[in-house]
Amino acid sequence: MLEDKTPPKTELEQLGEFGLIDTLTKDIKLQHKSTLKGIGDDAAVLDFKDSKVVMTTDMLVEGVHFDLGFMPLKHVGYKAVMVNLSDVCAMNATPTQITVSIAVSNRFPLEALEELYSGIRLAAELYKVDVVGGDTTSSTKGMIISITALGIADEKKITYRSGAKPTDLLVVSGDLGGAYMGLKVMQRENEVFKVNPNNQPDLEPYQYIVERLLKPEARVDIVKLLSDLEVVPTSMIDISDGLSSEILHLCTHSKVGCDLYEEKLPLDPTVISVCEEFEVNSTTIALSGGDEYELLFTVAQKDYDKIKANPNLTVIGYMTEEAMGAHLVTRADQKIPLKAMGWNSFGEE
Amino acid sequence: MLEDKTPPKTELEQLGEFGLIDTLTKDIKLQHKSTLKGIGDDAAVLDFKDSKVVMTTDMLVEGVHFDLGFMPLKHVGYKAVMVNLSDVCAMNATPTQITVSIAVSNRFPLEALEELYSGIRLAAELYKVDVVGGDTTSSTKGMIISITALGIADEKKITYRSGAKPTDLLVVSGDLGGAYMGLKVMQRENEVFKVNPNNQPDLEPYQYIVERLLKPEARVDIVKLLSDLEVVPTSMIDISDGLSSEILHLCTHSKVGCDLYEEKLPLDPTVISVCEEFEVNSTTIALSGGDEYELLFTVAQKDYDKIKANPNLTVIGYMTEEAMGAHLVTRADQKIPLKAMGWNSFGEE
Repeated sequence: MLEDKTPPKTELEQLGEFGLIDTLTKDIKLQHKSTLKGIGDDAAVLDFKDSKVVMTTDMLVEGVHFDLGFMPLKHVGYKAVMVNLSDVCAMNATPTQITVSIAVSNRFPLEALEELYSGIRLAAELYKVDVVGGDTTSSTKGMIISITALGIADEKKITYRSGAKPTDLLVVSGDLGGAYMGLKVMQRENEVFKVNPNNQPDLEPYQYIVERLLKPEARVDIVKLLSDLEVVPTSMIDISDGLSSEILHLCTHSKVGCDLYEEKLPLDPTVISVCEEFEVNSTTIALSGGDEYELLFTVAQKDYDKIKANPNLTVIGYMTEEAMGAHLVTRADQKIPLKAMGWNSFGEE
Repeated sequence: MLEDKTPPKTELEQLGEFGLIDTLTKDIKLQHKSTLKGIGDDAAVLDFKDSKVVMTTDMLVEGVHFDLGFMPLKHVGYKAVMVNLSDVCAMNATPTQITVSIAVSNRFPLEALEELYSGIRLAAELYKVDVVGGDTTSSTKGMIISITALGIADEKKITYRSGAKPTDLLVVSGDLGGAYMGLKVMQRENEVFKVNPNNQPDLEPYQYIVERLLKPEARVDIVKLLSDLEVVPTSMIDISDGLSSEILHLCTHSKVGCDLYEEKLPLDPTVISVCEEFEVNSTTIALSGGDEYELLFTVAQKDYDKIKANPNLTVIGYMTEEAMGAHLVTRADQKIPLKAMGWNSFGEE
């Protein structure tokens, strides 16, 4: 049926993930008054009378999003939950429930699924979310995990991608580029292992970045911190596709420009040294390395005093008028247009 | 990493889908007071203060749950939504929102995904549910669709699998076995087509059952009907895995037995004639044919007068004491123990 289809035929790589989602969802009309926000942010926002609920979903595919060659199944399960909780956090909401659907081929024994589930359970326990449902079925190839998360939010604090104003400060939690360099290290060790299985890799010097890759944490703590500091961000997104890509999302949705300062980018010493080892530019990695799950948000200038001393938060730039565009201001004080260099699952096949 | 795993190794086929889900989820503890019901029914029930929300999720895998050789993509999209809405209905709730995640390999062009989405949109429009989010990614093989649905429910009317009492009447909506025999017809025509692609199949005589397979409808109308009739079922489930399997679920969860009457099983004339054509027993098909999405529920005897005249509803038996067990009472008045003969995705690979 598909094979004898006549043109038009548009390859998915041409569109990329965001273009594809836009194309597929542009005709969707919302009918329920309980739907405050549908597609187009980190999560949907639903109005169940007294409660505002956010809803988000993410699918992870073996061989596309994770490689069981170096990622233990327990970590896959943990990470699959984190990816979703991170989207809930990016709405300034608190995760409450998840459903978990898994498709696996017959090459996986029960014990493999139990290991996967032990990671899912650990994540649920640590982050106090309830696993309330799911589906488990067979696949024709590999493992696919689809998780949907719900969270509750204070209506006045729900943070969309669209609220940033010129002069707002751009803030990021944690540090950048660790997960990507962790992946590079693990891929290198995996190649070495294939050639010589007796060669035991010494990952000790890379512990921090390997953990950033294998055991990311959703920044529920930042949502709580912002609440404690009495700061409501004007816009927020999580960094799953790389910093520059996410900054451009905030700019597009908020209709603003941005000046991002290279010298302000928070980098862990391990990332700097591993970038030297791999002979890659650490700024490029900080800008384009995905899989971070840090929160990127904007705050009004008046809130600067509340956040400036916090070691978890770094002011990395400020928003400008839309016509100014989005730029990286280098250490040499040059302004370079920001480009989306994020990760595209369709381009990687 | 998986290949060099040492035993124990338990094949998934040994457990079956229900055994697998039980094994994986038995240690899950619920922590949120907003979680009224977690895993173990057609959907979870969440308490968002004024609103009670049900949540359910289902994953459909190409080559396991659908065959693109004879199922147009638009129908796949439509059906994927129906499967989830049916679970919401089985809680006596009304569907409101869905998220849609899709993984596809590069063999699918954009136009194929647009066709799939046109079915999803049609279902959403007809059933008045909002598509509020999703994820679109690449797969290493085939198409996988994961949908999560939310619905709202009146707390007093939420119907679990566990509320049936002895003497309650067992009721089913619509008729049985159509989807399964539709599948048999389509499989036969597909084989003919492979041998002779010029042979145009005449599906006219099979229209009803082919539609049951390709375009099932979630019985939102039955939820509304029950509300209009002022009947609150004592237990309810949807028939996705075959009647006998679902009856046994109600019996187990409600701790009751059941007498099911063969002569009462509602069969469309097309099903009867196609069963003759294929030389299969129509009762067996009615008992074990899955993919129906009819509602199976129990009502108190006092409600019999309210439902007896309705052409959409058929009383097919009654519940007994648990110790009596679950039986089919044949036309020859013999009692045969009911066995689960439902569909198991792990057994089919």
